[in-house]
Amino acid sequence: MAQSFIPVRENIQHMQGYAPGEQPTDPTVIKLNTNENPYPPSPRVLEAIAAVTADQLRRYPSPDARVFREAAAEVHGLTPEHIITVNGGDELLAYAVRAAAAAGDGVAYTVPSYSLYPVLADMQGARHVHVRFAIDNADWHMPEDAFDHLSGKAGILLITNPNAPSGTLLSEALLRRALERFRGLVLVDEAYVNFARRDALSLVHEYANLLLLRTMSKGFSLAGIRFGYGVGSPKLISELHKVRDSYPCDAVSIAAATAALKDLPYAASTWELIKTGRGRVAAELKEMGFTLPESQTNFVLAYVPEGHDAAHLYEGLKQRHILVRYFRLPHLTNALRITIGTPQQNNRLLEELKALTGR
Amino acid sequence: MAQSFIPVRENIQHMQGYAPGEQPTDPTVIKLNTNENPYPPSPRVLEAIAAVTADQLRRYPSPDARVFREAAAEVHGLTPEHIITVNGGDELLAYAVRAAAAAGDGVAYTVPSYSLYPVLADMQGARHVHVRFAIDNADWHMPEDAFDHLSGKAGILLITNPNAPSGTLLSEALLRRALERFRGLVLVDEAYVNFARRDALSLVHEYANLLLLRTMSKGFSLAGIRFGYGVGSPKLISELHKVRDSYPCDAVSIAAATAALKDLPYAASTWELIKTGRGRVAAELKEMGFTLPESQTNFVLAYVPEGHDAAHLYEGLKQRHILVRYFRLPHLTNALRITIGTPQQNNRLLEELKALTGR
Repeated sequence: MAQSFIPVRENIQHMQGYAPGEQPTDPTVIKLNTNENPYPPSPRVLEAIAAVTADQLRRYPSPDARVFREAAAEVHGLTPEHIITVNGGDELLAYAVRAAAAAGDGVAYTVPSYSLYPVLADMQGARHVHVRFAIDNADWHMPEDAFDHLSGKAGILLITNPNAPSGTLLSEALLRRALERFRGLVLVDEAYVNFARRDALSLVHEYANLLLLRTMSKGFSLAGIRFGYGVGSPKLISELHKVRDSYPCDAVSIAAATAALKDLPYAASTWELIKTGRGRVAAELKEMGFTLPESQTNFVLAYVPEGHDAAHLYEGLKQRHILVRYFRLPHLTNALRITIGTPQQNNRLLEELKALTGR
Repeated sequence: MAQSFIPVRENIQHMQGYAPGEQPTDPTVIKLNTNENPYPPSPRVLEAIAAVTADQLRRYPSPDARVFREAAAEVHGLTPEHIITVNGGDELLAYAVRAAAAAGDGVAYTVPSYSLYPVLADMQGARHVHVRFAIDNADWHMPEDAFDHLSGKAGILLITNPNAPSGTLLSEALLRRALERFRGLVLVDEAYVNFARRDALSLVHEYANLLLLRTMSKGFSLAGIRFGYGVGSPKLISELHKVRDSYPCDAVSIAAATAALKDLPYAASTWELIKTGRGRVAAELKEMGFTLPESQTNFVLAYVPEGHDAAHLYEGLKQRHILVRYFRLPHLTNALRITIGTPQQNNRLLEELKALTGR
């Protein structure tokens, strides 16, 4: 080669990229590892996709997905100016970090939580500021003063609520305390909020430093189309529009996401099925000796019974064509994160776990 | 509000976002302003979209669009490891700037060219390094030593080739000189290359610091699905995978783009029609007294005849329901950028311009 050096910044060359969960191609695998909704999207979605014309494919899409923002404004009782759409929720995380943290600034995030957060901080060349859960096996607890002393240390605070992988929900009082004491952007990632007893939407009217992240991936069964959105004060949202891609969402995904959001009763029916399944899976796992934080998501974090090994159970399930998530990380080495599936999938999981644990 | 400050970096608050070309909702408007292909995508594309299943929508897509990368590797005589896919070409520009230029570094780009480049530099908090065309009305010319002294001043050099808005093509010798003398990443944005007499693909084997950008938007009539890809040495591409979104491309757009790329003869037939149209439009404009750089793209940059005003012609065409692009920028105030349309659209454009100029 005439030139063989790699013209990429050192911090990129040294960093690790994000490793997504396994995506098996074998259709017989029961996939309980990446928190997808086990039910198909609304039939309206397939109709909307079929109605996309050759001319819509040929032309640039709406730069700001106007039709979706109008639908979301109506669903949430807000205005389109409160909404920004993105190519999957991860993209909003990237925009927010870019907008609020310069290189050398801090990016604060709860730990353990979404493993993309440190990757985003690395990309920005930012310092990592950890806000740690107090954890005692299945007891996850965020100290009351956890967010009190971040001002000046970080430009942005990332909170997954409900949290992954614990499934737990922070109190509204704690969120308010973060929003009041932290002089920076507070991004509350509500990827799993459709399965929780409460959301933080009403706080948008009170705090201009709050950015909520929603996704169509889990609650609306549309992980395949990559569509998320942010909700915040119009002033904040208008700043984020400056750092976004010129056309983040495509014509097909805008049509699909809008159809899905408008068919809220259908999506809500899947949430009820999943919450019922979650109750049953949690109860049966407890009977088998697992311990679990109280999940407000579409997955459970199950700490394995004494005398068992989570890595072995993960491998055993995999051999039996059931994929769950295992994290070789502090506080998580003796736990499995299990997505709630259909009743049939949940049954298979519970049967195989019984066989593997002998309980 | 309990909190009303805007928690966004100062450089973001002061910057201007990118302003895309107008997207009229009136379907009777003849849209010659954003360089879309006037012909529909291959019928195979609509078939591929119709074949997407509810299960594909529900699940996460392939994180690296494997099936497209295999198709592109075959078309270009490369391996999938030479290819990275993105949610529209603009996303690759953002990734490349992020990977190669730290805050405070320089981002070098040709001027005048794509107006997104300075926005990307601003986002990264980078210095702007301009590499200027020598311009005398319709005569655009890049000085031979233009790229010789950028090392140390910039981490990345962005070249649109063929260039927009001039439509002109740099020589291979000049590209080689940039690749050899500049100790940084050279991104050659080949958005318009399907309409040019030559591409830079073979240089990928020689220069590890070369990143080619391709898009499905123009040549393949798929601006609506947001799909582009980068081509470079496997080592460079593997670094870019680290800074990309976890799932940049969705299941539907992967299926659509793959179908379009595989039906190369169809796309190539549209390129021939457009090149024929370009020849005719250019010839007739010249007869009317316009002067034009030699276009290797799907648009022409037309300098208006003496005694006429480009802004007035732009407005006059708009009143007659024809949208072209007018830039209130140095060297461009007396020119219109006109996308080549179908023969019928080209006829309408030429008729209206004749009426407006009295020629």
